[in-house]
Amino acid sequence: MYIKVVTSADRAPGRPRSREADAAILDAALDLLIESGAGATSIEQVARRAGVTRATVYRRFPDKTRLLIAALEAAYGNPPRTPEIADLEQLLSGWSTAVADPRQRRLLRRLYGAIEDQPELARAYQDLFGRHRDQARRDVFAHARESGHLPSDSDPDVLLDLLTGAIWQHLATRPDTCTPAETKDYLRAVLHQAGYRP
Amino acid sequence: MYIKVVTSADRAPGRPRSREADAAILDAALDLLIESGAGATSIEQVARRAGVTRATVYRRFPDKTRLLIAALEAAYGNPPRTPEIADLEQLLSGWSTAVADPRQRRLLRRLYGAIEDQPELARAYQDLFGRHRDQARRDVFAHARESGHLPSDSDPDVLLDLLTGAIWQHLATRPDTCTPAETKDYLRAVLHQAGYRP
Repeated sequence: MYIKVVTSADRAPGRPRSREADAAILDAALDLLIESGAGATSIEQVARRAGVTRATVYRRFPDKTRLLIAALEAAYGNPPRTPEIADLEQLLSGWSTAVADPRQRRLLRRLYGAIEDQPELARAYQDLFGRHRDQARRDVFAHARESGHLPSDSDPDVLLDLLTGAIWQHLATRPDTCTPAETKDYLRAVLHQAGYRP
Repeated sequence: MYIKVVTSADRAPGRPRSREADAAILDAALDLLIESGAGATSIEQVARRAGVTRATVYRRFPDKTRLLIAALEAAYGNPPRTPEIADLEQLLSGWSTAVADPRQRRLLRRLYGAIEDQPELARAYQDLFGRHRDQARRDVFAHARESGHLPSDSDPDVLLDLLTGAIWQHLATRPDTCTPAETKDYLRAVLHQAGYRP
């Protein structure tokens, strides 16, 4: 299934009040996704929290999934800023900071929790971020392998699954109070086991 | 919080009809957990599906979480059979078979999805299975390290996080139609990256 993502470029510029309503709706949608999950979030709740009518929401977003996707885009950019990752150390630092953010942790767990009933949402998140970021990460792994910091038979795809998986495991088993430094130690230990020698 | 788990040992043996109701309630609860998730499952739905009254359910289980925990126990044993894992090859085979089972995949994703709102459920699952199985797995990793099949500085705890994480990633990104052989190839590639040389 192909989901048409409603972006700001598709909409008429609108009056300031209309743009305010847009922002309020998208903020409310992201907050509710994080607080209650995709399944328990309704257009009605989003409208109430944003202080607009349901009709105002429906005029902009035909359904909940497209609203939540637009909320992710609004928060993270569309297209999101392509990360420039110099090397594995920078990847470790960036990932640790992101994964230690409590709001980001909850959002990621909510997206995992949505896989079963709202697969389009998880897929949209992956399309928005995954493609660019994952390729940048694969390039870093390949480069580290070529410079001898990873075993010569390392597979960037496997490393990406292995590290992304380690983050799911961290989100599931470590407290949300963990610091970026603790998160970095965790990821460094995983990378060390995967053969990384800086 | 300590959750008192109601086990069959705590209950009077009961008449056959009562045991039938027990089984019907526990089956219905597990099915609904897998189909709808912990958040969307209610005692009312379980009663309806099991063909009993709500009062019949509440007489046995004081709340939904304890009912779902009992359903997991009923399905997997309490205590569950302690696995005997001879070596990493057997661990790979056992894990691949379990992870390739579509019902098990959905259950595991539901348990991950419950972390945010029903943390006691995920914790109970971990208490039921994790403790025994994880220790058995750590022993296998330690043994593989000592026999030279894993790097000498391998850390069984890190390997456990790494492999468990790789399974979360598999559950999130691979189709539920994957075969045990495909799942095994995936896990073997992850273990190879972690330095496993059989």
